[in-house]
Amino acid sequence: MNARSLLAVSAPMARALDLARAAAAAGEAPVGAVVAGPDGAIVAEAANAMRARRDPTAHAELLAIRAACEALGAERLTGCDLHVTLEPCPMCAGAIMHARLRRLYYAASDPKGGAVAHGPRLFAQPTCLHRPEIYDGMGGEASAELLRGFFRALREGGR
Amino acid sequence: MNARSLLAVSAPMARALDLARAAAAAGEAPVGAVVAGPDGAIVAEAANAMRARRDPTAHAELLAIRAACEALGAERLTGCDLHVTLEPCPMCAGAIMHARLRRLYYAASDPKGGAVAHGPRLFAQPTCLHRPEIYDGMGGEASAELLRGFFRALREGGR
Repeated sequence: MNARSLLAVSAPMARALDLARAAAAAGEAPVGAVVAGPDGAIVAEAANAMRARRDPTAHAELLAIRAACEALGAERLTGCDLHVTLEPCPMCAGAIMHARLRRLYYAASDPKGGAVAHGPRLFAQPTCLHRPEIYDGMGGEASAELLRGFFRALREGGR
Repeated sequence: MNARSLLAVSAPMARALDLARAAAAAGEAPVGAVVAGPDGAIVAEAANAMRARRDPTAHAELLAIRAACEALGAERLTGCDLHVTLEPCPMCAGAIMHARLRRLYYAASDPKGGAVAHGPRLFAQPTCLHRPEIYDGMGGEASAELLRGFFRALREGGR
């Protein structure tokens, strides 16, 4: 990541990238997520933990959403925003819909597993109950490089 | 539910319907889910608990999948089947995909919120990573009647 891309990343997305880096160091696919309140302050954060928790649903987004609901004592995150380092999968896009998040910021695109701009394009479905505002690309190169490095090391038997 | 439909429902689906009934009695939208192992024995079960847990991700399927992974100490439920009283939403269909469940049995269709035969039709997407065998309709009328009764009571201010 060069100085220009550092400057271009918001504080919540920078934190999400830090969480993704920590996930990679722990042997998890590097994805981090942060829920910020209406004022921009961080309400909850999480990183992928599928391996550590032995739980296929322990994606960063799902964990951050659950933690934010617990922190706020609320079933819905109306007015809150999710910042995540990778385009959400169908499961996480569905959770974003159920939580009624205001905005979704995601860094890297995921043509294979993503469900926002790819595959089922969940928020573009006529039956979608709630669509957040969507902003993509911020921090995308840093996130993609983290993911490439992680999967390269996996292929090379480095972990 | 008449005698004929009772006879037509498998033991795991009958249990899922019981869980849905208990959810309704607790003020939750009535959906129940059971994970059965390769031999048909129940591994884990859950009912909707979004209100009780103040958690928009606490759908019966997601809770049952997480409980089954915990019970088996495994990140994947290969060889296991999910029995649920309502067509899964995108979030839960995504979780079924990630958990690599062998078969999905669902009772009632959900044209508004479902993501299997409706809306994004997740398992029919070219990018879908894993497709379970899918069986629908068993117990459908009993489940639909439970849901109709619950939402009728809600509209009438009965709870």
